[in-house]
Formats: sequence, C-alpha cells, structure tokens
Amino acid sequence: MKLVALAGGVGGAKLAHGFQLALDNAADLTVIGNTADDFDLYGLRICPDLDTVLYTLSGLANPATGWGIEGDTFATLEMVGRYAGKPWFQLGDRDFATHIVRTEGLRRGDSLTAVTASLARALGIVPAIVPMSNDPVATMVNTPAGRLDFQEYFVGRRHADEVLGVHFEGIDTAEPSQAALKALHTADVIVFCPSNPIVSIGPILAVPGMREALKLSPATTVAVSPIVGGQALKGPAAQMLAGLGHEVSAYGVAAIYAGIIDGLIIDRVDASLAPRIEALGLQVHVTETVMRSNDDRAELARTSLAFAQRLDADG
Amino acid sequence: MKLVALAGGVGGAKLAHGFQLALDNAADLTVIGNTADDFDLYGLRICPDLDTVLYTLSGLANPATGWGIEGDTFATLEMVGRYAGKPWFQLGDRDFATHIVRTEGLRRGDSLTAVTASLARALGIVPAIVPMSNDPVATMVNTPAGRLDFQEYFVGRRHADEVLGVHFEGIDTAEPSQAALKALHTADVIVFCPSNPIVSIGPILAVPGMREALKLSPATTVAVSPIVGGQALKGPAAQMLAGLGHEVSAYGVAAIYAGIIDGLIIDRVDASLAPRIEALGLQVHVTETVMRSNDDRAELARTSLAFAQRLDADG
Repeated sequence: MKLVALAGGVGGAKLAHGFQLALDNAADLTVIGNTADDFDLYGLRICPDLDTVLYTLSGLANPATGWGIEGDTFATLEMVGRYAGKPWFQLGDRDFATHIVRTEGLRRGDSLTAVTASLARALGIVPAIVPMSNDPVATMVNTPAGRLDFQEYFVGRRHADEVLGVHFEGIDTAEPSQAALKALHTADVIVFCPSNPIVSIGPILAVPGMREALKLSPATTVAVSPIVGGQALKGPAAQMLAGLGHEVSAYGVAAIYAGIIDGLIIDRVDASLAPRIEALGLQVHVTETVMRSNDDRAELARTSLAFAQRLDADG
Repeated sequence: MKLVALAGGVGGAKLAHGFQLALDNAADLTVIGNTADDFDLYGLRICPDLDTVLYTLSGLANPATGWGIEGDTFATLEMVGRYAGKPWFQLGDRDFATHIVRTEGLRRGDSLTAVTASLARALGIVPAIVPMSNDPVATMVNTPAGRLDFQEYFVGRRHADEVLGVHFEGIDTAEPSQAALKALHTADVIVFCPSNPIVSIGPILAVPGMREALKLSPATTVAVSPIVGGQALKGPAAQMLAGLGHEVSAYGVAAIYAGIIDGLIIDRVDASLAPRIEALGLQVHVTETVMRSNDDRAELARTSLAFAQRLDADG
C-alpha cells in the first residue's frame, strides 16, 4: 500500500507522523512538502515546512512551539543579532545547522530533492520527504499594507493583516519534482493533510503538472479538513479563507478541493456540514481530527487510510 | 602617532590588543590581518586570523584555547556533524554567527575589507582591522604526506607533519587591500607582531606591492620575535622554520625580516643572540616578550612603540 501525503507545516507534519506510526512499512510513505514558504535569511536557505516535517518525523520537533527543535538554544542567533540587528525570525542553534548544510548542498548544485533526502537520511527518517518542486516558488500576500513576502506576513507581522490576495511567485515556470510525480503515479492512496488549503496545499496543487498527476494517479484521494468548528487549529488559514471569499468552514475547504479529491474527513463538531459537502460530489467521513498526542496522530492516520480504502472498494 | 600592526593569530592578536590598551587613541591603530589561512567549511567563509583579532580586541576571545569565543557552546556544530559527519574543525555557536554574517556579506558582493569593518563595528572595536587582501589566498603546505591545505595541516593533522615547503596559492594575482596600503602609507610606526613569520606575516609580505608599500612608508618598522628560547609559544612556527632551513631562533626570524624591518625585539632568554642579529643590520631591544596578562600585552606594546620611536630619533 503506497501512500502519498501532501503536507504544509505543523498540522500536516503531525498527520504525516501518524502515517509513519500507522504503516506496517514506513518506507511506503512519501510526504510531498510545500516549498512556497521557503526564503533566504542571513544567506541561508530556509524551508520552514520541509523542516517541520523533518523534525516531526525524526522526533526532534518542539511540540510546544510547533516549529524548530525541542530544547534548542539560541546562541548563534543572538550573536547574528549583534551583527545584523534584532532578529525577526527565530532560528535555534541546531536548526541553523539544517539551514547551513542545506545551503551548502544547494550551492554545490544539488537539487532540493537530493538535499532534503540527505538531511532526512541523516536524521534516520524512513519515509521519503520530497519537495513539491526543486525550483524556487515564493508565496506573496497582498494586504492593505501592501504586498508582503509570506514570512514577513506570517512571522514578521504575525498574520495580523487582512488578506486581499495570494499568489505564488515563480509558480508558472516551476516544475514538479520528479520524486513527487513518481510517488503520485504509483500511489494507492493520496491524503491532503490538514494544512492550510491556500498557502500550504495550494502551492503544491499550483505547480504546473501537479493537478494532472493527481488526476492521472490511480490512487484514491482524501483530505482532512484543517478547519474545525470554523477555525484553524493553527496559523492564518481562517483569515485567508475569509479574505479570499471562501466560507471559513470544512465546507469551504471541500469547495476548494472539489474535483480533485474523492472524500473529505471532517471533525465531529462539523458533522452538520456533511450534506452540503456531499452535494459537492464528495464522500464525507466524520471523526475526531484534533491531534493532541502521538496516539491521536496514528489514529487519524488509520482512519484516513480506512476511509480511502472504503472509497476505493465502493468506487 | 599612527600605528600599523601586522598580525596573524593568537600572538599577534595579543600584541594588537596591547596597542589598543596602550594607545591614547585606539583609532590610531590599524591591524593588517593575514587571510591566507582562510577557507570554506560547510559553505561558510572562515577567516581564523581575522576572527582571532576580532574576538581578542572585542574582549570575546577564549583565553584558554586561543581560538573562538569564551563560553561558546557547540550545539550548531554537533547538529552539523549529525548531517555531515564528525567535524574536524571546532566552531562554536557564536563563532558560527560570524561566519554566517561574513559569508552573507561576501556573497552580496561586499569586499572582505567592508565585511570585516562591519563585524568589528558591531563588536564595538575602535581600531581598524583590515585584511591584507580582498582576494582569496590559500596557504598550502608540502609535507611527506603530500600537499595539504593549511587548516588540514594545522588543525586536521595537528601540525605533526614535517614541512618541506610552503606556498601561497593565488598570491600572484592578489592585490593588497586599499585600506592596508593607505594605513602603511600614513603610518609612523609599523610593528610585525609575534606571529608565525612563514605562514602569518609571510603571506602579508608576499602580497604583490606590500613590500614596496612597506619600503615607501615613512614609518619606523620593528618586529617582535615569535620564537623565544628556540621555541614557538604557540603553533608550528618552529617546525616550519626548521623544515624550510631557517635557524629556529630569534636570529632565524631576524634573518627573514632583515631588509624590511629596522629593529627586532627579542626575549631576555635570547639576549645572547643580539650581536648576531645586529650584524644583520638590525637594532635589537631585549625585554620580556611572553604575554600572560592584559598588563603584559600593554607593556610589550608600550615597549615596542618606545623602541620604534627611539630608532626613529636615532635614524
């Protein structure tokens, strides 16, 4: 059973970790990560979503913050701040190591796919973690304060600005990574993790050729709604959906994914939305979707797989 | 009274610090640093001698090791090692910050002079610290084990190999930094700090145009012998002098510098060498040259200045 998970940051990484825990053979899992949040800081290439997946699947993640490495220290950043001014983006000492080694690899001419695989291997991660593309893509957010780089909007200004529009710079000429295409081509099940549909799953789907690869894949495709009770568990998904004219609900998520996925998993608190989502032509499964523990992650992973397999049997 | 100090690593940085302490106006001091030890590691540009001067003049230096920053931690390097294999070169977390910010500046197109000045300013250093050249120069050491990069010879193999030859890759096309030339041109006193004459002061003198600038400078030029009692206080100077056929003594140092300097300061234990050194046409001053404290540094600085001024008055 080959499984592909599309993931952004914290929520996506948690469910990906659930699959790693739930699968008999974790090597059957490929995580396709969003890279449109990637940016350069202090001359280093930072891939926040890939890193969150790397740290979560390797057990290094800081469960309190959702980003970075548990117990990390901040001596390097403190000294960088002495040279370059007060930091606006937190980077721990161990986290810096990831960016240093990645940047060295990229400058040497290795692809982001190869560099990410090498980092994952060093951390003992069995599933494949592949970027959506080896080409740089940058999410830009239009706000009343002007057009902002994603990290400036998200971290620098704490996603407090109204979102008027989102676009992905470089997406038109980006190519999907071969590793992502190959994983989709041979997948039995594809899961869109509970990540932001606009700026996490959105860029992955926007890479030219990715939607076609999803359509051509023999896999059953299901998503887990990141919106629970009309709110995002983490991050700016709710404001973004609202700002872009989507309903801020599991239904709104379903409407965005309709035509691409076969079924949607929604939380119990959203059970009443099921008929409207089914009217979009999607199957619905209602369950607990909030992951508070590793057991929750594995349970939601098993539920997602069982749902997809049931749809496959029905279809 | 404008002073220029030529310095390599630990010994040179100590005396440069002495001048900073001894001068009425520390801004009258320019330290010209050796950059032939510079190398790339993990994609970062590392300038060991400039860094030792930066850390020493800012009071950050680790007095126990002679390199790096006092109290530095090693979380970044430990994690880098997890990705890239066991490190052979120690880099502390705060030290990493220096290399990250420097590398960012160089990649942006700033000169090493500009980047170094910016680092020094951020650390509150008043004297000017200028690289001998903005162009990359790399010391290579010929040994029975083959030709080694300097850091591989010095750190990686703990300078245990016999030295058969030394050369400075890139020196023929390197240009002296304008800041170094200007400082030499306007100097009243030039001091060769007690640094390795082969691989610390040697490369500075070997930059095309540097010897001419020294010759044309109106300054009185004195050196402090780094060889005391036939031994180097630190590092491989003794083995190198021996390997290259020089006498391992203050006389050997004098013979290398003869024709460039006006006088040499030697340690009391080497007083008996004075007549032979004077026979080379050099003035000699005998004093305590081992710097164990900040007071020792300032005292040797004052002694060096007084010696140079006496030579100037005599000349």
